[in-house]
Amino acid sequence: MSTAAGARTLSQQQLELMHKYWCAANYLTVGQIYLQENPLLKEPLRPEHIKPRLLGHWGTSPGLNLIYVHLNRLIKDYDVDMIFLAGPGHGGPAVIANVYLEGTYSEIYPEVSQDEQGLRRLFRQFSTPGGVPSHVGVPIPGSIHEGGELGYVLAHAFGAAFDNPNLIVAAVVGDGEAETGPLEGSWKSIKFLNPVRDGAVLPILHLNEYKISGPTVLGRTSDERIEQLFSGHGYRVYFVEGDDPLTVHRALAETLDHCYHEIRSYQQQARTQGFSGVPRWPLIVLRTPKGWTGPKEVDGIPVEGTFRAHQVPLEEVRTKPAHLKLLEDWLRSYHPEELFDEGGRLRPELAALAPQGERRMGANPHANGGKLLVDLRLPDFRSYALEVSKPATSYYSNTRPLGVFLRDIFKENAEQANFRYFCPDETNSNRLGDVFAVQNRTFLERILPIDDHLSPDGRVMEVLSEHLCEGWLEGYLLTGRHGLFATYEAFAMIADSMIIQYSKWLEGSRALSWRAPIASLNLLLTSTCWRNDHNGFSHQGPGLIDTLLSRRGSIARIYLPPDANCLLSVADHCLRSRDYINLIVIDKQPHLQYLSMAEAIEHCRRGLSIWPWAGNEDDNEPDVVLACAGDVMAMETVAAAWWLRRRLPQLKVRVVNVVDLMTLYPPELHPHGLDHATFVAHFTEEKPVIFAFHGYQRAVHQLVHGRPNPARFHVRGYNEQGTTTTPFDMVVLNEVSRYHLCLLAMEHTPRLRHLTAPLVRECEERLREHHRYIREHLEDMPEIRDWTWTD
Amino acid sequence: MSTAAGARTLSQQQLELMHKYWCAANYLTVGQIYLQENPLLKEPLRPEHIKPRLLGHWGTSPGLNLIYVHLNRLIKDYDVDMIFLAGPGHGGPAVIANVYLEGTYSEIYPEVSQDEQGLRRLFRQFSTPGGVPSHVGVPIPGSIHEGGELGYVLAHAFGAAFDNPNLIVAAVVGDGEAETGPLEGSWKSIKFLNPVRDGAVLPILHLNEYKISGPTVLGRTSDERIEQLFSGHGYRVYFVEGDDPLTVHRALAETLDHCYHEIRSYQQQARTQGFSGVPRWPLIVLRTPKGWTGPKEVDGIPVEGTFRAHQVPLEEVRTKPAHLKLLEDWLRSYHPEELFDEGGRLRPELAALAPQGERRMGANPHANGGKLLVDLRLPDFRSYALEVSKPATSYYSNTRPLGVFLRDIFKENAEQANFRYFCPDETNSNRLGDVFAVQNRTFLERILPIDDHLSPDGRVMEVLSEHLCEGWLEGYLLTGRHGLFATYEAFAMIADSMIIQYSKWLEGSRALSWRAPIASLNLLLTSTCWRNDHNGFSHQGPGLIDTLLSRRGSIARIYLPPDANCLLSVADHCLRSRDYINLIVIDKQPHLQYLSMAEAIEHCRRGLSIWPWAGNEDDNEPDVVLACAGDVMAMETVAAAWWLRRRLPQLKVRVVNVVDLMTLYPPELHPHGLDHATFVAHFTEEKPVIFAFHGYQRAVHQLVHGRPNPARFHVRGYNEQGTTTTPFDMVVLNEVSRYHLCLLAMEHTPRLRHLTAPLVRECEERLREHHRYIREHLEDMPEIRDWTWTD
Ligand SMILES: Cc1ncc(C[n+]2csc(CCOP(=O)(O)OP(=O)(O)O)c2C)c(N)n1
Ligand SMILES: Cc1ncc(C[n+]2csc(CCOP(=O)(O)OP(=O)(O)O)c2C)c(N)n1
Ligand SMILES: [Mg+2]
Ligand SMILES: [Mg+2]
Repeated sequence: MSTAAGARTLSQQQLELMHKYWCAANYLTVGQIYLQENPLLKEPLRPEHIKPRLLGHWGTSPGLNLIYVHLNRLIKDYDVDMIFLAGPGHGGPAVIANVYLEGTYSEIYPEVSQDEQGLRRLFRQFSTPGGVPSHVGVPIPGSIHEGGELGYVLAHAFGAAFDNPNLIVAAVVGDGEAETGPLEGSWKSIKFLNPVRDGAVLPILHLNEYKISGPTVLGRTSDERIEQLFSGHGYRVYFVEGDDPLTVHRALAETLDHCYHEIRSYQQQARTQGFSGVPRWPLIVLRTPKGWTGPKEVDGIPVEGTFRAHQVPLEEVRTKPAHLKLLEDWLRSYHPEELFDEGGRLRPELAALAPQGERRMGANPHANGGKLLVDLRLPDFRSYALEVSKPATSYYSNTRPLGVFLRDIFKENAEQANFRYFCPDETNSNRLGDVFAVQNRTFLERILPIDDHLSPDGRVMEVLSEHLCEGWLEGYLLTGRHGLFATYEAFAMIADSMIIQYSKWLEGSRALSWRAPIASLNLLLTSTCWRNDHNGFSHQGPGLIDTLLSRRGSIARIYLPPDANCLLSVADHCLRSRDYINLIVIDKQPHLQYLSMAEAIEHCRRGLSIWPWAGNEDDNEPDVVLACAGDVMAMETVAAAWWLRRRLPQLKVRVVNVVDLMTLYPPELHPHGLDHATFVAHFTEEKPVIFAFHGYQRAVHQLVHGRPNPARFHVRGYNEQGTTTTPFDMVVLNEVSRYHLCLLAMEHTPRLRHLTAPLVRECEERLREHHRYIREHLEDMPEIRDWTWTD
Repeated sequence: MSTAAGARTLSQQQLELMHKYWCAANYLTVGQIYLQENPLLKEPLRPEHIKPRLLGHWGTSPGLNLIYVHLNRLIKDYDVDMIFLAGPGHGGPAVIANVYLEGTYSEIYPEVSQDEQGLRRLFRQFSTPGGVPSHVGVPIPGSIHEGGELGYVLAHAFGAAFDNPNLIVAAVVGDGEAETGPLEGSWKSIKFLNPVRDGAVLPILHLNEYKISGPTVLGRTSDERIEQLFSGHGYRVYFVEGDDPLTVHRALAETLDHCYHEIRSYQQQARTQGFSGVPRWPLIVLRTPKGWTGPKEVDGIPVEGTFRAHQVPLEEVRTKPAHLKLLEDWLRSYHPEELFDEGGRLRPELAALAPQGERRMGANPHANGGKLLVDLRLPDFRSYALEVSKPATSYYSNTRPLGVFLRDIFKENAEQANFRYFCPDETNSNRLGDVFAVQNRTFLERILPIDDHLSPDGRVMEVLSEHLCEGWLEGYLLTGRHGLFATYEAFAMIADSMIIQYSKWLEGSRALSWRAPIASLNLLLTSTCWRNDHNGFSHQGPGLIDTLLSRRGSIARIYLPPDANCLLSVADHCLRSRDYINLIVIDKQPHLQYLSMAEAIEHCRRGLSIWPWAGNEDDNEPDVVLACAGDVMAMETVAAAWWLRRRLPQLKVRVVNVVDLMTLYPPELHPHGLDHATFVAHFTEEKPVIFAFHGYQRAVHQLVHGRPNPARFHVRGYNEQGTTTTPFDMVVLNEVSRYHLCLLAMEHTPRLRHLTAPLVRECEERLREHHRYIREHLEDMPEIRDWTWTD
């Protein structure tokens, strides 16, 4: 256990002022939870001053307020560039109180002015209709972390600190939150934080000992064990503990001072003498009572310092006079008349405690990252094109050219240092290894000669945690940088709840003009269900498509490029975009190439096209449309068209490939949705559509609902049939192979029934033959494995 | 750092035999990855003996084999009841090798016999079409953990150990796996494991120092820091390190002996003298080379002991003679001729090392939990019924009666000790607090007088980790017990990838007759999107419904009971079921009650019904069907019907409530799917259906695809419009309020257009009035808040 030796000593007077500032923040917190009138308590408190529905979380708030006022002091004393992340984001009213006190809130929302009227509004709006949400959400200036779904605060904090050498990110971790897997998995982030080029994270573990209705695991763990735990993670642990305000104020101030000096000295040493190992970064354990300064007891039951302080400690203030009295005593215990003047303005000696301008944590531009966003310098993606002279005649790994493109993005932006690539240990496996020509994996522990492209200076962030990859990237983007998260398709689901939360943040942020647009969250899913034949069933899951389909409006975009050139075009487009979640799904294995770069660009611009070379329609409408989305699906569809042209030329077939899945949505539901005429121009009004879909087949039905005759869409896709087998067997098991598509096409063209009987038998025989062959030879038939288009 | 003092000393001869057994397992592992012929290397190795596609993971396998043979020795020496969980489940061939060597594999799969023919089959089938998957999946006897999606091994292990006092669960944790959030969040499980009544988990951290393509964080962390870390978590750490086989054999054997005694002495003490604190359970850190005993170098590049050994260390054995030679040398280095006799049988002195009968880890019945399953004693759920004399006239918290039912389930099964309830700190919040009348929260650290129902003996498992709740429950079920996981609806998404993986396991297990059915995974989602008005947008997300809709066949069942009696009936049904994932979605707040218990039972049996009291159809078909699924949706629908009856009696309305969502699926797709006639009897052939759906609205379109005229289904549901607001405002924001439903009903009945204009205006005015009212009064209009049905 370390002590805060060498820290500055604050005067009693300064501590007392800070204490008052803390009281003001606590007062505003309680006011927001309870009051709709009488904000300065100029009158005795009456039931009608109380909101009809009491919503909010008191328990965590005094701790957040305490930390905020102390960070303000530190910022002012040392001119620190700092932002604040509240893990227990349910402490929304506390953070609002602080950004209001420091003035940023009223600058952004002038109607919530720094006077009595403004106070009334501040209180009334909290957690009420048309007002402000209860958590530290996107409307709160200075926030980049809502903290509603607990567990991601450290991941966000480290993401924000990467490549921000002067920034210190103060991150409050709830001790309940500290029980979540994602949070426990985040402590190791210091192993990826380079003191030379990155900023620092100062974690403050808020050990108020309780969560909603019970004690926390760490809350009942001895300091000794806690110290071992975090020393094991590599931190130096500082304890600040107590329930006497002035003692705690003094200890916290001294500890913060000490930690600040420690951080700066690590950085200075690394920056002057070079990197020499992961520093023992400081971590503060703040053990103070939950709901500190709130009611000690209610109806004879202890509240302060227990889980009972978590939400609204006094629930019946409107109906029980004794409770109303308790509330009034509680509010008056802060002496609002000493904190605010008659007009409701914070007294000047207190207001002077807050930092100025952009040093205020609510106004720090890092927390409004779009303000700092510098465009990515993108080399011309066309120069990475594969030569494709004739469609579907050559195989190439679809992700490989993207790897080369990424390599040069790293090169072009080396100076700007604003691009990172995140991946759970699969960059090479995903065939993006060309990046290693210029960029290393970030690694700060010992490096051995046999290691492959490791360096403390790398910007390829490989950690075996989808949560960290996603969370770091989110923090990196929110503070105004660019990035890409590439992962096995199936395991993207591990982070899907984070992606959902992030989409909610983006939706909120777009509605706020003061939030500047940030770079999009780009997700590349590879090693897809169709080609995880070697890893088997657990590695086969295209579910993230469905999760993103459920997002609101235009936030999410889903791309299924059929080949390498389309992938380059889509990736370029996504990397230039702002405020979206872009999902790109494409496999890493060698696949057929279809389009030249010029064609690919046009195809991706349109979002879908008819592939005339693959169909045989004449001037009339085709008999059947073979549609496809996804690389393997394109291959099976084109091969089906090829087979049908040969064996049943009377059947007029059109092939449509969809790159941008959202084009299928009606235009009211997504801005990419095709207008009616264009939809019909591709899919006709009423001809059967056999749709080979990369993901869960039935998702297409929700997309085409509202289109003419949706019942004629016959979709095949991944149907949860999987195992370790050959690539072609995967499409056979899921009944979306070329032969299945041919069978469907024939089934849905009754006009030609007199011709199809022998062909149906032939398809079925091919499938039986496949079944026999792979069991004997353990690989696909050469006619399948090596299939290419011939005229 | 502790040493293994006091352990039994094994003779050199025994260690040498064990070494040979290890060689045999390694040999079989390599054989599975490479060979399709010549399994005993009776001939020189030729290219055609090699499989055409080389799939599998070598790197982790020698470590798994080493551990397995040593656990065998321990089991035999002390008659231990033990199962084995491999975190790095990609080491499938290693575990298969061991269950084959011990004989269990051939008992279950007699065609894979213990002779040369069987060996050939064992090798050929691995990772090949029609063969066995590459991971430690459900076809492998003794496995309850596939290990494909890394991170859950400890959660599963502890789940298996709860209420299994004699069982020891050996759990191998990959050091890459140890980087995942869910795994890091699992170490604390010892804080929930009671030595009196629970078994033990022996974690073995397999520090082979690498993952796929880089070093692991712990792999490059000093032993000192590792010891601090795990001491902080509460373990006593034992290191076994080295690359000299015999030294490691001796150290591992002694350490295992010591750990075993330590476990038993903790248990004995607790069981004789009572619980007195969390023991410092042993944890073994096994630091041995990745791909140990494999090729040291390939083409001049080190392989053994590096990440390059992760998958298939020699890839071109079929084409490069030098590589073929390396492979042959590698295989022969194990001296197969000394391990197996001429006929391919393991030599008797080696076979004698394996335990016998059910002590073999592949045959331990705990790993085939259905064999041990004892029916849950369920009190008659009817006795918890709410009195409902007239539908939609009284409000009651929907989950509360379930809490009473659960209380008595705990009581009835106290002796059997085979039921647990898992929840992330929200039992009270979810209004299930009645369980605390008989059952406490499990808590093993210090308990204070102010604490609420904590005890080391509790079986309410509250931990703030959705991952742990889900993973513990899975482990508990897989070993033959019963349980329920209740959580906030939105945060269920945190564990959805685990639920997906579990569904894959169940699908596989159903196809294997030797796997006995187990109790279903029961998920209760409450605090739903419609009533998380106080927590706001981040807490609003019904996505798990969509995830479960994508599951194959009949594995998943989704219930949306409209009221408390239906919930009781559904819960009883789910708790009796086997091998399903049952999702129950219902809110905890006071809601309208619709059905008496008798009606509820019939309604749930049918899965959906017409509510005749709410409609006004006569003998003809109605003009419009108002369908609904979910509690709040039922209320809005019934209220819409009520309003329409009053204001537009000419409109003939039918109300249909859907409890069992899968009834909507065509019967080919789900066994609950209604046949055509029943579907039409409810929804008509072609009348418009206005469907108020609890979840993301468009999911219904995928359900009704294939039904007559699917385009006439007009669905409203949760549309990602949310914030902190009033309950009714939530349905207004998402355009599924009673007024919106009335508007839709009118819009889709052109027959009455001449009458509807003023009513449309009225609905719109009610909505504007609502908007004004809540902003002024901060709560819903009394006519909404207190609405009940009147005739
Ligand atoms: C992932 C997740 N699960 C559950 C919840 C519900 N929840 C809200 S607050 C809370 C307790 C938080 O405790 P702690 O982190 O200690 O915060 P504090 O004590 O500071 O309020 C819980 C379980 C949540 N917000 N997120
Ligand atoms: C959640 C998850 N992410 C990624 C992968 C892909 N993957 C398979 S094995 C592996 C490395 C595992 O390393 P480790 O746990 O150390 O196992 P071992 O070294 O014993 O092979 C990875 C990243 C996975 N299986 N699961
Ligand atoms: Mg807490
Ligand atoms: Mg490893």
